[in-house]
Amino acid sequence: MDRFSRYFSTNRERFINEWREFLSFKSISTDPAFHEDCVACSDWVRRHLEGLGFSTRYLPSESKPVVLGERQGSAEKARVLFYGHYDVQPVDPLELWVSDPFKPELRDGRMYARGAQDNKGQVFSFLKALEALIALGVQLPNIKVLIEGEEESGSEALHAGLPGWGDDVQSDILMVADTGMVASGVPTITMGLRGIAHCEVSARGPKVDIHSGIYGGMVRNPLQALSTILASLYNDDGSVAVPGFYEGAQEPTARERDLANSAPIHVSDIEGLLGVPLAGGEKRFTPMERRGLRPTLEINGLGGGYQGKGGKTVIPSSAMAKLSMRLVAGQDPHRILSSVVEFLKSAAPPGIAVEVSDALVGGPALLLPVDSDVVKIAQKAIQRAFDRDPVYVWEGASVPIVSLLAKASGAAPILVGFGMQEDNIHSPNESFSLKQFEEGFMYSTAFFSVL
Amino acid sequence: MDRFSRYFSTNRERFINEWREFLSFKSISTDPAFHEDCVACSDWVRRHLEGLGFSTRYLPSESKPVVLGERQGSAEKARVLFYGHYDVQPVDPLELWVSDPFKPELRDGRMYARGAQDNKGQVFSFLKALEALIALGVQLPNIKVLIEGEEESGSEALHAGLPGWGDDVQSDILMVADTGMVASGVPTITMGLRGIAHCEVSARGPKVDIHSGIYGGMVRNPLQALSTILASLYNDDGSVAVPGFYEGAQEPTARERDLANSAPIHVSDIEGLLGVPLAGGEKRFTPMERRGLRPTLEINGLGGGYQGKGGKTVIPSSAMAKLSMRLVAGQDPHRILSSVVEFLKSAAPPGIAVEVSDALVGGPALLLPVDSDVVKIAQKAIQRAFDRDPVYVWEGASVPIVSLLAKASGAAPILVGFGMQEDNIHSPNESFSLKQFEEGFMYSTAFFSVL
Repeated sequence: MDRFSRYFSTNRERFINEWREFLSFKSISTDPAFHEDCVACSDWVRRHLEGLGFSTRYLPSESKPVVLGERQGSAEKARVLFYGHYDVQPVDPLELWVSDPFKPELRDGRMYARGAQDNKGQVFSFLKALEALIALGVQLPNIKVLIEGEEESGSEALHAGLPGWGDDVQSDILMVADTGMVASGVPTITMGLRGIAHCEVSARGPKVDIHSGIYGGMVRNPLQALSTILASLYNDDGSVAVPGFYEGAQEPTARERDLANSAPIHVSDIEGLLGVPLAGGEKRFTPMERRGLRPTLEINGLGGGYQGKGGKTVIPSSAMAKLSMRLVAGQDPHRILSSVVEFLKSAAPPGIAVEVSDALVGGPALLLPVDSDVVKIAQKAIQRAFDRDPVYVWEGASVPIVSLLAKASGAAPILVGFGMQEDNIHSPNESFSLKQFEEGFMYSTAFFSVL
Repeated sequence: MDRFSRYFSTNRERFINEWREFLSFKSISTDPAFHEDCVACSDWVRRHLEGLGFSTRYLPSESKPVVLGERQGSAEKARVLFYGHYDVQPVDPLELWVSDPFKPELRDGRMYARGAQDNKGQVFSFLKALEALIALGVQLPNIKVLIEGEEESGSEALHAGLPGWGDDVQSDILMVADTGMVASGVPTITMGLRGIAHCEVSARGPKVDIHSGIYGGMVRNPLQALSTILASLYNDDGSVAVPGFYEGAQEPTARERDLANSAPIHVSDIEGLLGVPLAGGEKRFTPMERRGLRPTLEINGLGGGYQGKGGKTVIPSSAMAKLSMRLVAGQDPHRILSSVVEFLKSAAPPGIAVEVSDALVGGPALLLPVDSDVVKIAQKAIQRAFDRDPVYVWEGASVPIVSLLAKASGAAPILVGFGMQEDNIHSPNESFSLKQFEEGFMYSTAFFSVL
């Protein structure tokens, strides 16, 4: 048992009590009714950081407070910026919770509370690692800790502030602990997040809804036109047919493909969970490659005409679809979105006006080079803490704030978290096991030790 | 001025008063609250027919009464069955009516009331023609008058009864006056009605709605699959791509195409009304040909995924579309519907289950041969009554009960009505001008005179 394990064991009960305090704040950022709870929670985070020897302040925010803690260390070492959030998701439906979401309860080695994992649990395991590192006299670099309060509601203050906070957040390594493991006890490095952009397309035909008997066959039906336009977005091989859609996309390397495919995530398990074969997307890539290493264009909603019970013989005046695209490293989301918008507009057949609205870029993709220094540090930290190699995954989802923070800070991001599917984040009875909490603690202590 | 015109002038005030009585019944068949009003109205129709010398009875019905009047005439002549309905549409929104819909009011030569045209006005002009024909001693054939009370609510009693009423309704000519004119003072023969069949198709993918970031590009998206299936229903030339869809469809003759195109209905007027070019359907036919002489397959509704404001990054578990087809003479609606259903089912890509539900046939098309005896009689009647040739139109809409009645009675249908767009049937302030009423009267007297 190494000194960090011992430190954890010795201080376990106190850690749990402090963690309970943190979890008791109703810091729901999406609901203005909980604004004061968010403020109180941010204050608690500041006090806690100060207790660890950090100087703290609020970065300018017109919405929820953004906490920045700083601690000077060895100027020789790579500077570290840690990112997390103190806000949590709403708790409805409350009746499905076994215990009060803001009265943390330890049952069978798991802490049950809203935020137990996402992100308070993961943040707190990092803070306790800092405490141990300091207490045990490990030489640390300059460390900044940025804890925001709007991750669940759009990170308004960060989006507004980050472009001007270069000096405040400048760093070399950006640690993010808002991710998970592919399986219990399998430390995982998240190597990529996809970028995202959205738009809505409408196809307009006749001025008003018209009778499909009287006009059927004369007038071009907006539902038919929209279906045809949407179908034309895709090639038979599952790739996206929009010219320029793959522009700039970094072709996955043999090593990336190999690592993505060898992660202990079984296609058959996903297929069992979803009840369908993983038959979508580009045929020339495996499902695991398609998830995180390739862009996709998805229809998220589609509607027009009569959708109630029975039939109604109508040709509707318009139809609409909502589209989103997930992009990979090398792709400029603005350019790709423009290509999609241009394609949609140019696809309008005679008798149909195509309009595109709500065209928005969420953010670019994030990709960690397999052989980068920061990945090697995380790999060694995992080997040291867990005596095994990490698993590497490329996520299909997007966390635009990480790309933005990496850009503003100039730091190389490293994403290692200890969440699990069974933690039920965003759902009733969210929990985080003490085992996962300790894994997070051990990883962070090892990371700084390796550094 | 011929004797029928004189008879009309002489009896004009009495006609109007009797017509007012007929219009005063709140015979709304769609609302059970007006059931007794429907029964009372049917009784009034019986008494009125009896006053004209008809024997009357109710045909068996478990819903609204069906009136059958019979009058023996010359056995040498072609027997005539007249079809009409005494029920009317609901009156909401009542506040938009200038006068009470059931207190008929004559303003500027138009009778305002619910049912003033559809169908009480047209029925009553026929009954008054019978009165005149009898009073003036014209030799008449055997005449049957069938007036139902559920045309606006699905003709339940007729659908249930007609297959067994062969003896009751047997006839040679079926007169229907539930149609209109293409323009004021332009008597119009409706030469065809399209048949109709419906179905609903659903595309099912994952068991539940899933995150489009995590699974986008791995799973086949039901919205994409359905769009592609719907797009594949059509060829680039606007024709329907379903094998067998045109099976049996009578190719329009040169004469039919010529008459359809020469009707005084201007494509530019329709385009102005709808605000779009008539750019749908088969390119090898003109809009007027496509409307009534060619089948069409229309999407009436389409939906799946997120349709609210903003975006939601979801891949929905399913998507659905409602389809209807309008068919022409020679086509068996059951066969065509089967072809469409088969096509949809066979179009399911891997990862998507396609299901078809609510597959229903409304009825087959109706087509009057241009050179048939009954069309020639109507043509001569129109020439005699109005000193001009009729206009011939092929309607795109469907009135399945007419086909069913033609089949049960063995009679050749002839559809001549005097309705106009401005009559506002089914809308507030429905009306029928005395001019149109007299035109209906004159046409019917001429029809029997020619016969």
